[in-house]
Amino acid sequence: MSTVRGFFTPRTATGRSSLVPAPPWYYSGDLLTVEYRTDPAKVAELLPGPLTLAEEDPGAVAVIWADWQSCSEGGEELLDPVRSQYKECFVVVRCSYQGRTYSRCVYIWVDKDFAIARGLHQGYPKKLGSIHMTRPHPFGQAAPRIGAGGLFGATLAAADRRLAQAVVRLREPSPSAGFVNGHPMAHNRWLPSIEPGAAPALNELISSGAAEFEGGQAWAGDAELELFDAPTEELAGLTVDEIIGGYYRQVGVVWNGGTLLERGAL
Amino acid sequence: MSTVRGFFTPRTATGRSSLVPAPPWYYSGDLLTVEYRTDPAKVAELLPGPLTLAEEDPGAVAVIWADWQSCSEGGEELLDPVRSQYKECFVVVRCSYQGRTYSRCVYIWVDKDFAIARGLHQGYPKKLGSIHMTRPHPFGQAAPRIGAGGLFGATLAAADRRLAQAVVRLREPSPSAGFVNGHPMAHNRWLPSIEPGAAPALNELISSGAAEFEGGQAWAGDAELELFDAPTEELAGLTVDEIIGGYYRQVGVVWNGGTLLERGAL
Amino acid sequence: MSTVRGFFTPRTATGRSSLVPAPPWYYSGDLLTVEYRTDPAKVAELLPGPLTLAEEDPGAVAVIWADWQSCSEGGEELLDPVRSQYKECFVVVRCSYQGRTYSRCVYIWVDKDFAIARGLHQGYPKKLGSIHMTRPHPFGQAAPRIGAGGLFGATLAAADRRLAQAVVRLREPSPSAGFVNGHPMAHNRWLPSIEPGAAPALNELISSGAAEFEGGQAWAGDAELELFDAPTEELAGLTVDEIIGGYYRQVGVVWNGGTLLERGAL
Amino acid sequence: MSTVRGFFTPRTATGRSSLVPAPPWYYSGDLLTVEYRTDPAKVAELLPGPLTLAEEDPGAVAVIWADWQSCSEGGEELLDPVRSQYKECFVVVRCSYQGRTYSRCVYIWVDKDFAIARGLHQGYPKKLGSIHMTRPHPFGQAAPRIGAGGLFGATLAAADRRLAQAVVRLREPSPSAGFVNGHPMAHNRWLPSIEPGAAPALNELISSGAAEFEGGQAWAGDAELELFDAPTEELAGLTVDEIIGGYYRQVGVVWNGGTLLERGAL
Repeated sequence: MSTVRGFFTPRTATGRSSLVPAPPWYYSGDLLTVEYRTDPAKVAELLPGPLTLAEEDPGAVAVIWADWQSCSEGGEELLDPVRSQYKECFVVVRCSYQGRTYSRCVYIWVDKDFAIARGLHQGYPKKLGSIHMTRPHPFGQAAPRIGAGGLFGATLAAADRRLAQAVVRLREPSPSAGFVNGHPMAHNRWLPSIEPGAAPALNELISSGAAEFEGGQAWAGDAELELFDAPTEELAGLTVDEIIGGYYRQVGVVWNGGTLLERGAL
Repeated sequence: MSTVRGFFTPRTATGRSSLVPAPPWYYSGDLLTVEYRTDPAKVAELLPGPLTLAEEDPGAVAVIWADWQSCSEGGEELLDPVRSQYKECFVVVRCSYQGRTYSRCVYIWVDKDFAIARGLHQGYPKKLGSIHMTRPHPFGQAAPRIGAGGLFGATLAAADRRLAQAVVRLREPSPSAGFVNGHPMAHNRWLPSIEPGAAPALNELISSGAAEFEGGQAWAGDAELELFDAPTEELAGLTVDEIIGGYYRQVGVVWNGGTLLERGAL
Repeated sequence: MSTVRGFFTPRTATGRSSLVPAPPWYYSGDLLTVEYRTDPAKVAELLPGPLTLAEEDPGAVAVIWADWQSCSEGGEELLDPVRSQYKECFVVVRCSYQGRTYSRCVYIWVDKDFAIARGLHQGYPKKLGSIHMTRPHPFGQAAPRIGAGGLFGATLAAADRRLAQAVVRLREPSPSAGFVNGHPMAHNRWLPSIEPGAAPALNELISSGAAEFEGGQAWAGDAELELFDAPTEELAGLTVDEIIGGYYRQVGVVWNGGTLLERGAL
Repeated sequence: MSTVRGFFTPRTATGRSSLVPAPPWYYSGDLLTVEYRTDPAKVAELLPGPLTLAEEDPGAVAVIWADWQSCSEGGEELLDPVRSQYKECFVVVRCSYQGRTYSRCVYIWVDKDFAIARGLHQGYPKKLGSIHMTRPHPFGQAAPRIGAGGLFGATLAAADRRLAQAVVRLREPSPSAGFVNGHPMAHNRWLPSIEPGAAPALNELISSGAAEFEGGQAWAGDAELELFDAPTEELAGLTVDEIIGGYYRQVGVVWNGGTLLERGAL
């Protein structure tokens, strides 16, 4: 009887075909964040029990664009960059679980399959999208610098419809790049049963966060954000009632697993 | 405490954001199949216990290209065809479980995210790829007809590398479009634990197949198949030792769930 | 001194690298057409002299989606279908030149580079877009048939924005698939000088049309059409004042060059 | 009689739809260059008269990957970055014309339509491709720094086949990023007549180069380069006989037109 190996499917005798190698996963990239307030009831709708609204600023939302380069141990993906580069746009709220505040990604779009696989593992509800964000560059007139007056745009589309667009004008250094995505993540990993009507096959509440983190100076500024409706998306339901701010930061992250908080009914 | 709904993530109060609606799922499409024999030991390597090699012709492999239009109940995806059309290329072997023969998809590439989500549910180990197959058409000189002499090509690429290409020349009507993919599927649904080193969070052997099927006349013909190596793929390891045949068929399929055969150790 | 060959760039000693081989070009495909009336002044704005508005129904516009397979002499692209398949959405008006009525494509989006190259040759003002149209299929519940009640959708996006979407419900056989695109095309081929401020390097009014044509039964039906604005597009300026009808037809076409009508000032 | 405006097609009353606005065009980006020697006869084959081989090092070739952000006057594309970002891979040789040495791009692939349009204007023989290059980043373990030991990969694919891949390991600062692409460009702008068999409609030898240039410190290092054959490509015919070196540099460029050197027979 053979044994198949691999961190993810497809699993084979060698494990080489796995859509994503085992963690730790390494990331280097740029984050553009817009934080705003929506009706807390809209956030509450996205929090399955036992999660509840965060006590402070419960309607705060972060929409984050990220332009990543990533790899696993050994870093061979870096020399075949089609396998290491991806962009994502994700929407984060906060919630409370057993008296502790967590961040939680409620919507996310990425542009590569290996990023989808990592998201399945980490509990990010990923879809494919087309994500673009202005890139800073030190030379020429076709790029902002990361500094006062730096002007950045970011867009998200999926299924041939634009879903979100933002503009951020940097103003000053900031102690952080926002607060909504600053906690450990509380995510559900969930998969229906293959048998119609049966209880879910997987139903976990898990937590994870960065194993290591380093970053450059965060910058804060003024932000505009537009969200657009679409037949299969509810992002625009998190209406932008009040902009909190816009942020830009370059970071390096290591992710290396998380913790099972509890299992739901199976 | 709120309840989130939806057949798949992201789950919301309405369920409208789910990457894929609940089954039944409806498919209309064309299948181009090349069947061949490889070393049965190469097939055995891809069969985790308790699956074993099929008793008859254990080294038989089918590489199948499919050009699908698909929808869920109500069919609204059909009027927004970016949400209903996708192509795939998948590799099927056979295996034995408790004395019964099953088909099993060991590798598969698709070009849309909703197809990836369905695959996670059905146990297909999907990656993204770029899939093309010649389309028959009744008019003009830029398409074959489905009939004697009809010449079809098909290609698969992923991560900017070509992985497979085939040519099939139709010769005669055939009672079937091959035998390798003709059984219920025996698939594993598998996801690692969020906690490094822990037992898998999901480890199921499931079976499923078409709930309904209709099809046109199958055609058989001569086939050529080339498989190319790539750093993260092992398809070329299933070497083409002897071509069995090539096939073309138009089909309509309904899929509506499956059966849990057994759970592996969690 | 060497000679470079090839119908198009890049030109080499063999001509093999040319982005598109020399005509004749062969096409097999499906056309979904929505015809409507807009303000004739909006059409007139798109007709450079000496072209003038067509005498009859001068505000008539056709938006046509096409799902093509195409090849050149020998047809080798058909076996490498990534090189033969493309989709397009194009907008056609009519105009008058020297007392004769011509069709004229004013906007067009395609999804392959070889189609862009052909358009440069033929005077179609092509951009890249993402084009989708419902595909008819004889089996299953995920496709309409070409016949009464057949329901087809079509969409166009570019630069991550949806630009147009249509729905057509077929009602009855029709003697034609509309009248707006039924004349020889009158197109400009135009390229600025490399020297700023100098007269254009290329400035031709040319005509071309199908060298051969065959087609199936055209079907007519009811149509809905929505056009959306975008920063770099003016399609929505051709407002839909009155729908004329929707059409579906499968066709085979050969294109093999055209005629220089006149040169503009160089 | 109406007038249509716009630097490029489609031309309209406002000019807003033009696939690319008028120059000047601004670029900020990163260049990874691999220079090597091939058989000069292979270079000569790609030089139409009156161009001849460069006198010194006539077999020198540069393969250059570029990751660009670009815009026109006003820079509005920078806030909608899907309209400003693109990548390209291009192959440059040198040639002699009237006693002066020029650089000449013989093959080039880009991933956006506005880049194709610029290339038509500038005489670059552009095709669409999928281009990737490792991106430097100051944080984390998933990116090299621009400095000694920095390891960069780059790949090119088109029509679902990999055409080229390179690895460069930076060793030391360098006075330049190579010499092959250091001259004004001598390019042909060429378009066949719409009338089969007639003389070309456009046949120009033009020259252009950067109107302004700024750049960071260039770095040189060791390089590997592999070229792969494909049915419609001849890049691999420029065989890699001897690697000269690899380079990395960040630059800012302005392009603002060129000069007509001579017209060929029309």
